[in-house]
Amino acid sequence: MRDFSTSHEHLSLNTATVRKQWKLDQIIDECAKRGIRAISPWRDQVAAVGLEKIAKQLKAHDMRLSGYCRGGFFPAPDKAGLEAALLDNRKAIDEAKTLNAPCLVLVVGGLPGALEGKAAYKDIERARSEVRDGIAASLEYAKSVNMPLAIEPLHPMTAADRACINTLEHALDLCDELDPGRSGALGVACDLYHVWWNYKLKEQIARAGSKRLLAFHVCDWLTPTRDLLNDRGMMGDGIIEIQKVRGWVEAEGFEGFSEVEIFSENWWSKPGGEVLDTVIARHKSVV
Amino acid sequence: MRDFSTSHEHLSLNTATVRKQWKLDQIIDECAKRGIRAISPWRDQVAAVGLEKIAKQLKAHDMRLSGYCRGGFFPAPDKAGLEAALLDNRKAIDEAKTLNAPCLVLVVGGLPGALEGKAAYKDIERARSEVRDGIAASLEYAKSVNMPLAIEPLHPMTAADRACINTLEHALDLCDELDPGRSGALGVACDLYHVWWNYKLKEQIARAGSKRLLAFHVCDWLTPTRDLLNDRGMMGDGIIEIQKVRGWVEAEGFEGFSEVEIFSENWWSKPGGEVLDTVIARHKSVV
Repeated sequence: MRDFSTSHEHLSLNTATVRKQWKLDQIIDECAKRGIRAISPWRDQVAAVGLEKIAKQLKAHDMRLSGYCRGGFFPAPDKAGLEAALLDNRKAIDEAKTLNAPCLVLVVGGLPGALEGKAAYKDIERARSEVRDGIAASLEYAKSVNMPLAIEPLHPMTAADRACINTLEHALDLCDELDPGRSGALGVACDLYHVWWNYKLKEQIARAGSKRLLAFHVCDWLTPTRDLLNDRGMMGDGIIEIQKVRGWVEAEGFEGFSEVEIFSENWWSKPGGEVLDTVIARHKSVV
Repeated sequence: MRDFSTSHEHLSLNTATVRKQWKLDQIIDECAKRGIRAISPWRDQVAAVGLEKIAKQLKAHDMRLSGYCRGGFFPAPDKAGLEAALLDNRKAIDEAKTLNAPCLVLVVGGLPGALEGKAAYKDIERARSEVRDGIAASLEYAKSVNMPLAIEPLHPMTAADRACINTLEHALDLCDELDPGRSGALGVACDLYHVWWNYKLKEQIARAGSKRLLAFHVCDWLTPTRDLLNDRGMMGDGIIEIQKVRGWVEAEGFEGFSEVEIFSENWWSKPGGEVLDTVIARHKSVV
């Protein structure tokens, strides 16, 4: 298992962590200044500055990506909506390519409309079937441009409105079905916030194996958790056994970045520099 | 599948649903007045009125229980705590017996101390092992007095502080281990709020079978859900496919009550009579 205690060379910052403090170009500069070698940016953050500009800035800093956030949201109430989702995912794949991302992270979507408060339908099996078809179609294009897709199982508390794939086991069932040869084109993003609770976690990490473990995200689960979306904890402030699970992931041969992704009103309210310095310190002491 | 549309003879009320409006003796009277034939009371509600008094009142109304809430919370930071939990569960079993409950529902507990904001330890495998040992020990006593124990998997968002068993699959693994003969002494409580999201739900309901499906609870999942504990929805206000899953449960031979359990600041703020009338109406139209 890699020793993170003396260096943060394996740290990547998911840029949502400081999205309310800075625009993406400043986030990149602030990361570079602190020796953070990789980021995982969000599409809206990239768009706000400009894709080409961000691509150039990354190159200038020799900064890598640990993933690109995000594709997905496949389910829709009608055919037009399903096709629009496929087009949008194709666009996300192209952007990921431009930014030289190692993978496009998929938050697959839940019941269409639920995120806006009113589900167009309640049949979650239908949503799962639309997700399956959406990934299958996107995978075809992704393979043609050599951009791996990483299915990110989200916490079950998001099943209705954000992602109806909620366990590594379910994500890997889909990988088995859509990429039985384990070509490397389809895998999973293992975000501890979403999967830490599962009693089959160790078993499913082993099942994924290094070829399908495309990303590893860390933060912490607070007790109490006061919000279903924006109350993630800084590593060490909650109860996730981060090092133990990182050990399981690395035992499979994972050598990628450890990506810190903290959605938190608490941390968004602090100066960005303080957040980044804390992320680096905790990455050394806790991750 | 039973037809619930014309009668609420199979409805049971989990008394937490109106716990802020009335004490338990009044809840029982109000239920009886409306033809609700069963309840599932909580220990603190029983204690506030008196166990013997409640037992007599139930008998006078010919009112049955669909379960007794609750035993569990087995993990503890030390031996004294583990033993205290076992004693308390023994007491809960005796109370369930006095009230003629068909089962004692187990909310197994999570990391000890987490509910109070500070976990005594983070090792969730240890908590699960303490849960296993606690159920095994309690089961011995429960069998001797013929009181079935129903493990209730809670939603994964409660894994840290309330229940580290979060899927029917995990609960049934424990049933397989501790009661391999399927004696009827150990089973599960299937609460749709906690398990609706799981892609293996149908499969695990079939695995449970009628001998291990000891209780069936309904309410709804709201979008958005604003609180991890107290924002459950009235049936029909959310996205759970209640009838579909009830069909799966009854296909296994389940003939028990359908227990409505709504923890909700919204419904606690309304007059109790309005809540009960709505529960009855929705049970007919939605469940």
